[in-house]
Amino acid sequence: MKVSSQEIWESVEAIRAQAPLVHNITNYVVMNATANALLAIGASPVMAHACEEVEEMAGIAGALVINIGTLSEHWITAMFKAAKRAGELKIPIVFDPVGAGATNLRTDTARTFVKTFSPTIIRGNASEIMALVTEDIRTKGVDSSAASSDAVEVGRLLNVDSGSLVCISGETDYIIDGGRMIKITNGHPMMQRVTGMGCTATALCGAFAAVEKNAMAAAAQAMAVMGIAGEMAAEKAEGPASLQSRFIDILYNMTESHIEQYLKKEV
Amino acid sequence: MKVSSQEIWESVEAIRAQAPLVHNITNYVVMNATANALLAIGASPVMAHACEEVEEMAGIAGALVINIGTLSEHWITAMFKAAKRAGELKIPIVFDPVGAGATNLRTDTARTFVKTFSPTIIRGNASEIMALVTEDIRTKGVDSSAASSDAVEVGRLLNVDSGSLVCISGETDYIIDGGRMIKITNGHPMMQRVTGMGCTATALCGAFAAVEKNAMAAAAQAMAVMGIAGEMAAEKAEGPASLQSRFIDILYNMTESHIEQYLKKEV
Amino acid sequence: MKVSSQEIWESVEAIRAQAPLVHNITNYVVMNATANALLAIGASPVMAHACEEVEEMAGIAGALVINIGTLSEHWITAMFKAAKRAGELKIPIVFDPVGAGATNLRTDTARTFVKTFSPTIIRGNASEIMALVTEDIRTKGVDSSAASSDAVEVGRLLNVDSGSLVCISGETDYIIDGGRMIKITNGHPMMQRVTGMGCTATALCGAFAAVEKNAMAAAAQAMAVMGIAGEMAAEKAEGPASLQSRFIDILYNMTESHIEQYLKKEV
Repeated sequence: MKVSSQEIWESVEAIRAQAPLVHNITNYVVMNATANALLAIGASPVMAHACEEVEEMAGIAGALVINIGTLSEHWITAMFKAAKRAGELKIPIVFDPVGAGATNLRTDTARTFVKTFSPTIIRGNASEIMALVTEDIRTKGVDSSAASSDAVEVGRLLNVDSGSLVCISGETDYIIDGGRMIKITNGHPMMQRVTGMGCTATALCGAFAAVEKNAMAAAAQAMAVMGIAGEMAAEKAEGPASLQSRFIDILYNMTESHIEQYLKKEV
Repeated sequence: MKVSSQEIWESVEAIRAQAPLVHNITNYVVMNATANALLAIGASPVMAHACEEVEEMAGIAGALVINIGTLSEHWITAMFKAAKRAGELKIPIVFDPVGAGATNLRTDTARTFVKTFSPTIIRGNASEIMALVTEDIRTKGVDSSAASSDAVEVGRLLNVDSGSLVCISGETDYIIDGGRMIKITNGHPMMQRVTGMGCTATALCGAFAAVEKNAMAAAAQAMAVMGIAGEMAAEKAEGPASLQSRFIDILYNMTESHIEQYLKKEV
Repeated sequence: MKVSSQEIWESVEAIRAQAPLVHNITNYVVMNATANALLAIGASPVMAHACEEVEEMAGIAGALVINIGTLSEHWITAMFKAAKRAGELKIPIVFDPVGAGATNLRTDTARTFVKTFSPTIIRGNASEIMALVTEDIRTKGVDSSAASSDAVEVGRLLNVDSGSLVCISGETDYIIDGGRMIKITNGHPMMQRVTGMGCTATALCGAFAAVEKNAMAAAAQAMAVMGIAGEMAAEKAEGPASLQSRFIDILYNMTESHIEQYLKKEV
C-alpha cells in the first residue's frame, strides 16, 4: 500500500480548515513542543489531565492522544477515564507507550491500556512496540534498542491481538493494519537528537485521525508529514535545536508541492 | 485613555533595574516559555506550587501569577493559599483563566478564584472572559471561539462585579477598569500559532504590576510590549518557532525607540 | 588543579560512544531543555518520577540527576527512593538544590538529601550552596543573590561535611573536593537570561559522571563544556533564545579543536 501526496495534502487542508481540538494527556517533557507542532499544522491542542475534567474535555475533542512518558498514579487514572469516554463517543484514541519495556509500571500500564481500549492507533519505537508483546525486550530508557524493521513481525501480532493499527517509527516507519502495511522512509537521523519527536508524531497522528476516519490513511499521512518536515528542516539545520525550530516553521508553511517533492515515491 | 511609549519604557527600565521576583503557579505547557520571557524582559521568575512553600514564596515576590492551564486538585489548593498570602501582603495578583468555559472544573475554579481574591488583573481571551460571567459560552479547549471585541461588554460587567482590572486579549487588546478602557492594537496573527503566548502576556502583566502600582497602566504596558515584540518578531519570522525565538530576543533587546516606532499611535 | 582539553574531549567521545542513560528527576520548567542538552551531547535522557518506577529506572541508569526546582511531596519521596537505589548500586548521583534558601521546604529537603545520600556532585549557584550550610542567606527565588566567589569558603565546608564534591557555578565556576579546587572561567553573562542553564549544567555533570569515575574531573569537564558552548553560542546570538538554540547545536557539533580553542588556559 502507498500513501499519496494528494491525500496527505487533503488532510493537511482539512486540519487547517477545521482546526480540530486534540486533547493530549501527555508527558511533561514534550507538552510545549507537542502543542506547538499541533498549532503549526493547524490543529487546536489542549492539555488537560485532572480526573475531574478529562471526560468533559475528551468529549469535545476531535481526537484523544495518550502518552505515558512521565507516568504517575493520578495520571493513569485520568488517562483511563478519558479513553473510556472517547471510546464511548467513537473519538479516535492515539496511544504512545513511551518507555514501555524500561520499567514494569510503563509496560504494565501500556499493556492494560491497549487491552482495555483497543486504541485507534498505537505509535511507538521498535523497543516499545516489542515490549507490548514479548517479555524479552529491555528498553533503554525511552530510546529504542532495536531497529524498526526488527519489530515488524511483533507489530503484526500486536495488530491482530489488539485490533489497533500499529505504527512503528524509526529509520523506516511501518504502519500495519489488517494484513496490510505502509512504509514511510522520509525523515532524518538528527530527529532522534530532538526530545519528543516521537511524541510529536503521535500527536500529529491525533490531528490527522480527527479529520481522516481511515486510521491507516491517517497514520501514514501523519508519519509522512513528520518525515517530510524533518527532512526539509535538516537540510539547513546546524544541529538539533535549529532542526526543531525549522521543523515547526515548515509544518506551518507546508504546501502541496513540498509534499510532492519530498514524499519518497518508491515506498 | 492611552498608554505612552515613555511610560512603557520607564516600566521596562524599572523591571530591568529591580528584577522583580515573579512567582508563577502556572501550567506545565508554558512554564519554560514563560520563565524565558520573564528573564528576557529583566524579571526574575520562579515556579513553585507545593502547598508547603507557596505562601513563603508568594510572600517574597513582587507579583503572583496564577494560571489554570493544566489544573488539578493539589494545584488549586496551592493557588488559593498563595493568593491568600499575596492578598494579605498587598502583592499584585494576576490571574489567567485558561480554558474557562471548556470544562466545569476550569469555569468553577476560575469564578471562585475571582470572587475570593478579586485579582489585580484578570487576563484572558474573549471566550475565557465571557465564561467568567455568562453560562452560554463554550470555549474550544484553550483557544477563543469569539473575537476580543465581542467580550467588551461582558468585560465591563466583570470589572464592576469583581473589582479586578479586566484585560481581554485578541486582535485588539481591551484593558478595562473603572469605566475606562485602553485599546492596544499591536501584535501579529501568527502569535496565535505559538502555544502560551497568552500565558506569556499574563506573566508580563505580573512583571509590570510589580514595578507599576497603577494596574491599568501596568496591564496596558505589558500588552503593548507583547504586541510590539510580537510584531517585530513576525517581520522576519519564517513561522511560529522562529517568531517565538525572535520574540524572546526582542524582549531582551527592546529599546525606547523600538517602543516609539512600533506603538500604534491611533489608539 | 586544571582540566585539560584532551580529557574533556575524551569524555565527550565516551558519552557519544556509550550514550549513557541519565535518569532525571527534575523540575517541570527545564525538562525539555535538559533532555535536549543531554541528547545533543550524546547521552540518553529519561525523565521518570513515579514512586512505582524510580528505583527500577535508576537501577538501569549511568547517572541519577536530582533537581528540586519544582518540588512537591510525592516527588520528594521519589527522589529519595531513586537516590537510595542509586547509592546501593554505586551509580553517581548529581544533586541540584534549586532555590534552596528561598523557602524552608527547599532548604530542608536539600539539606536532608545531602546528609542522607552524600551525592557524588552537588551543583548550585552561590546562594543555594550557602543555604545548605548557613542560616543567614536568603535566595531570591532561584537566582543567586551572591557572587560565586563569595561561596567558596562555605563550599569547602560543605565538601568536608557532606563528602560530596561541591560545584559552585557563576561568573567563575568553582569545583571543590578534598582540599583541591578547579576554576572554570568560560561562559557568558547572557546565559543567566536563559531559564534552566544551571539545571542543564547539573544534567551534563550527570552525563560526564556516567563515563568518568573521577567526580572532580567529571564536574570540571561538564562545566567547561557548558561554558565553552555558552561562550561560542553567545558570539552570534541576538538574545537569550538564539543563544539557547545555538548552545544546543554547538553541544551537538562540539569538536576537540573547539575545546582547545575556547578553554581558558590560565585557570
